[in-house]
Amino acid sequence: MQLGVVGLGRMGQIVVDRVREAGHDVVAFDLDEQAVATAADAGATPADSVVDLAERLGGDKRIWLMVPAGDAVDAALDDLEPHLDSDDVVVDGGNSYFEDSVRRAESTDAAYLDCGTSGGPAGAELGFSLMVGGPEWAYEELVPVFDAVATGPEGHDRMGPAGSGHYVKMVHNGVEYALMQTYGEGFELLANGRYDLDLESVARTWNNGAVIRSWLLELCEEAFAEEGNHLGTVADRVEGGSTGTWTVQEALEQEVPVPLIYQALAERFDSRSSGGEGPGRFSRRLANRLRYGFGRHEVPRREE
Amino acid sequence: MQLGVVGLGRMGQIVVDRVREAGHDVVAFDLDEQAVATAADAGATPADSVVDLAERLGGDKRIWLMVPAGDAVDAALDDLEPHLDSDDVVVDGGNSYFEDSVRRAESTDAAYLDCGTSGGPAGAELGFSLMVGGPEWAYEELVPVFDAVATGPEGHDRMGPAGSGHYVKMVHNGVEYALMQTYGEGFELLANGRYDLDLESVARTWNNGAVIRSWLLELCEEAFAEEGNHLGTVADRVEGGSTGTWTVQEALEQEVPVPLIYQALAERFDSRSSGGEGPGRFSRRLANRLRYGFGRHEVPRREE
Amino acid sequence: MQLGVVGLGRMGQIVVDRVREAGHDVVAFDLDEQAVATAADAGATPADSVVDLAERLGGDKRIWLMVPAGDAVDAALDDLEPHLDSDDVVVDGGNSYFEDSVRRAESTDAAYLDCGTSGGPAGAELGFSLMVGGPEWAYEELVPVFDAVATGPEGHDRMGPAGSGHYVKMVHNGVEYALMQTYGEGFELLANGRYDLDLESVARTWNNGAVIRSWLLELCEEAFAEEGNHLGTVADRVEGGSTGTWTVQEALEQEVPVPLIYQALAERFDSRSSGGEGPGRFSRRLANRLRYGFGRHEVPRREE
Amino acid sequence: MQLGVVGLGRMGQIVVDRVREAGHDVVAFDLDEQAVATAADAGATPADSVVDLAERLGGDKRIWLMVPAGDAVDAALDDLEPHLDSDDVVVDGGNSYFEDSVRRAESTDAAYLDCGTSGGPAGAELGFSLMVGGPEWAYEELVPVFDAVATGPEGHDRMGPAGSGHYVKMVHNGVEYALMQTYGEGFELLANGRYDLDLESVARTWNNGAVIRSWLLELCEEAFAEEGNHLGTVADRVEGGSTGTWTVQEALEQEVPVPLIYQALAERFDSRSSGGEGPGRFSRRLANRLRYGFGRHEVPRREE
Repeated sequence: MQLGVVGLGRMGQIVVDRVREAGHDVVAFDLDEQAVATAADAGATPADSVVDLAERLGGDKRIWLMVPAGDAVDAALDDLEPHLDSDDVVVDGGNSYFEDSVRRAESTDAAYLDCGTSGGPAGAELGFSLMVGGPEWAYEELVPVFDAVATGPEGHDRMGPAGSGHYVKMVHNGVEYALMQTYGEGFELLANGRYDLDLESVARTWNNGAVIRSWLLELCEEAFAEEGNHLGTVADRVEGGSTGTWTVQEALEQEVPVPLIYQALAERFDSRSSGGEGPGRFSRRLANRLRYGFGRHEVPRREE
Repeated sequence: MQLGVVGLGRMGQIVVDRVREAGHDVVAFDLDEQAVATAADAGATPADSVVDLAERLGGDKRIWLMVPAGDAVDAALDDLEPHLDSDDVVVDGGNSYFEDSVRRAESTDAAYLDCGTSGGPAGAELGFSLMVGGPEWAYEELVPVFDAVATGPEGHDRMGPAGSGHYVKMVHNGVEYALMQTYGEGFELLANGRYDLDLESVARTWNNGAVIRSWLLELCEEAFAEEGNHLGTVADRVEGGSTGTWTVQEALEQEVPVPLIYQALAERFDSRSSGGEGPGRFSRRLANRLRYGFGRHEVPRREE
Repeated sequence: MQLGVVGLGRMGQIVVDRVREAGHDVVAFDLDEQAVATAADAGATPADSVVDLAERLGGDKRIWLMVPAGDAVDAALDDLEPHLDSDDVVVDGGNSYFEDSVRRAESTDAAYLDCGTSGGPAGAELGFSLMVGGPEWAYEELVPVFDAVATGPEGHDRMGPAGSGHYVKMVHNGVEYALMQTYGEGFELLANGRYDLDLESVARTWNNGAVIRSWLLELCEEAFAEEGNHLGTVADRVEGGSTGTWTVQEALEQEVPVPLIYQALAERFDSRSSGGEGPGRFSRRLANRLRYGFGRHEVPRREE
Repeated sequence: MQLGVVGLGRMGQIVVDRVREAGHDVVAFDLDEQAVATAADAGATPADSVVDLAERLGGDKRIWLMVPAGDAVDAALDDLEPHLDSDDVVVDGGNSYFEDSVRRAESTDAAYLDCGTSGGPAGAELGFSLMVGGPEWAYEELVPVFDAVATGPEGHDRMGPAGSGHYVKMVHNGVEYALMQTYGEGFELLANGRYDLDLESVARTWNNGAVIRSWLLELCEEAFAEEGNHLGTVADRVEGGSTGTWTVQEALEQEVPVPLIYQALAERFDSRSSGGEGPGRFSRRLANRLRYGFGRHEVPRREE
């Protein structure tokens, strides 16, 4: 099948590559011409504009948006709208707020799929986990693409109607914050505890058979291997927080207690306002580094 | 090599089986004759008593204790002590408090290895994660056994001197509590949120490529598959808590903040004292079920 | 001076009484005729409707709204609006959301004062604490009324421009939740601890000279005196939560960590969803009873 | 009556003064001769040593220890022991760990009263809150002294047998930590919120009639008055923590959830290990200053 991809940043290029490798055709556009050229090198048909992309796709368009959450999604949709009808399918693979996705699904003529995408740039080879919301028929139409972008048929599913994909992704991210902070607390205690331990060895031993083994723990192991036992210059400063904030807001709305997720978010706020002269809290320094591990987010570092 | 195994409960039998399968000889003892018979059927040499076991092992004894933490360990050591000298090695594979292990290491004539064992009965096939504390030479001597009991050479390591193995295992368990409660919070929000979701599908999709994938999340998936989307009669009551309590106590001693681990422990206390008429908090019901998932701990259920 | 009072529930009647006792004239209205009759018995001039009240006040109207937060405020304002001009002053003494107050201040022709009122029905004799937002001149105009309704000149102040009064009251309530839950935790530990204590005696001893003495602690003392040492049938169910939720939402917006306030709010949610057969968590049962202590909120009780 | 006072620091001198003012005789000793001279100036009979003090008291000795918790209490008791018999009464007015008090009560020949003392140096004029554990007859014997040291007859009571006084004081302090941190969170939100507020005015308004009024809130008001609206150079560093740690340890032992008290303690740990360049968390800076407010603990300040 043929897929239009709008947005060719790190994640967008991975989508292009994985879809191409699965034997599908891709028409690719980005505001950055260099990114379009890279996609063309990878075998995609380059487009000059969103409109050009829409025209090249012909009837029954299937379009994957991989642009930053917020205004960029609305801008792309505005450009596409005149070219869309009810047989077309638009996928938003970004980290949009689920209520925006509901609104967009209602206002576009196309079938709209909100697709939470987890795995980060580090998941390029394995494939992603895709949580999809929207009309059943549109999801079924896109299955070949989802099979290619995800780890395989098990790595994607339709969660429910419009918004549910980004809703589940939002909660995923709240859980992610708390898992990172939890591993951080464990290693902070070990780093300040009674024994002089090799934390990379601890993480490796745990990753082989322990109850708490996980991909995030593998990224801890990698972090200690690359930064050293005390995480070197990694700063006590954890950026980000919008999806975690949405999760807590939704939990307030639903009156569901989420004290661990809340505390993990509060640690981020705290890391940005604390005073002090030391290297800072080990737990948050590890969480800072883990964000690079899966998402290639820049690592704030302190001056030596 | 030849290994004596004292304690043939669920975990002890797995040790016997894995060590036998790796080609080693086992002499096995338990107070329960039936358990000794089972081990004998699996190819172990049965022993009538701890003393009989010690005598059958001859010189340079290597003995693995797999008995409940606490008095049972001291009792086994008391029986063994007259038969031990400095060329012998005793491994405590149970969940002992690390300060008990330090004390025992100091008081026995044998080399003493405290070995935190993670993976639970559910890890029988894959093998365990083994965190070992004690003398370097004794650890090296036991490597063939550790290779067999662990997932392989990567699944065990020497953490440091006496007590360090159980110390790292203690922190592992504190982390485990908080990971379980974190997943619980995420699913509690989804179960009470805006969409009618299939939580098994959510867990499966996350387990395939998402940042938060882990073994515990696989056990969540299994729990929803076996108990249903709302966890059926699984009660809002989480038993256990000693290793988590030790972790928080040690963190108080070291003045390391561990709010997520503390809160996960407090949720257990809370689950045992709350009043109310409903099915209870979903997060804790899931944590309750996960304890069965890896540890085969009995699942408290509410009457229908 | 002359004050119109709209809304003659428990708090509104107290306003009428205190303003009357300070020598001012009151015109009073409520949808409930009985409440109007009660106010008339106390010396107020009864009004048939909001419009009748406005007409009776003549020029330079000063009107105090003491109606439930939300639609009732807008409804009263809608009725008043045709009769208001820029020399008039309207005070909203209820628990309105501060952004609603900003909106109302912008849309009415009158000067608008948002007045957070703390002290609850239990504060009738002492007088209230009034946190006022809005134009300086309007605040100055109303000082005689504020002197009467508050504990005195120290019991009221202008916090800042429109919305600031209800903003400060919102945070006050978030703090209130956490203070109640904190005392609750202390007494829960004492009630389950090593000694058989008389909690009323503990509270009284603390209230006389201890660092933690406070009005809420006096209300704890009263609760133990009236309900008994184990709080009798008081249920583990804490109602309410909107102002606390607003506080946490605002803290998320401002990225300020408020883990204690969050946890106190989460305990309320938890108290409403927990399962279990016992009397429940003592801390929350005490918080439940304290809400009656200051606010005369009905006390949920469990069946004996 | 006649009272021996051992330990003439800030709190000990207040005991001497209040007991003298109530018309009793005092024999006073401290290792610091200057402190003894000060007590003598205030009308006490100076003693050269603990032994000298014991001898001057004659039969039926009543002795108040006001020395630092820990070894100093045992040292004073060791010196006194040869001079004590079962008609004598020793009061420990310090912040001892309750299990130490139980042990001391068992090992001394005298009747032993463990007396939790709250109110701090700032309570010199008003008098203290005294929580007393130990034999009923000994408590009754000392009532005239307790009446003098406390705010009056309401300011002291016998909590129960040996250790119960310090037990209740321990919980008091855990509650104190959480109350301070709660007010801190409220003011941190106001300091970073949408309005430019005068926090001293907020505190004063609240202290006059609001539900959350308290002595600690009066100390907040004083702190803003003396340090300015943004607390000047007061550092994000909260010292102390032993009684709070004991409270959490006891709650772990009793399996009582105390998340707010735990978090308040964790904030202290966090304040000592955080990195960062700003002035730090307002909540903890306020808690830092409040410790001076009631206890005259030195205020850590950051360099300007």
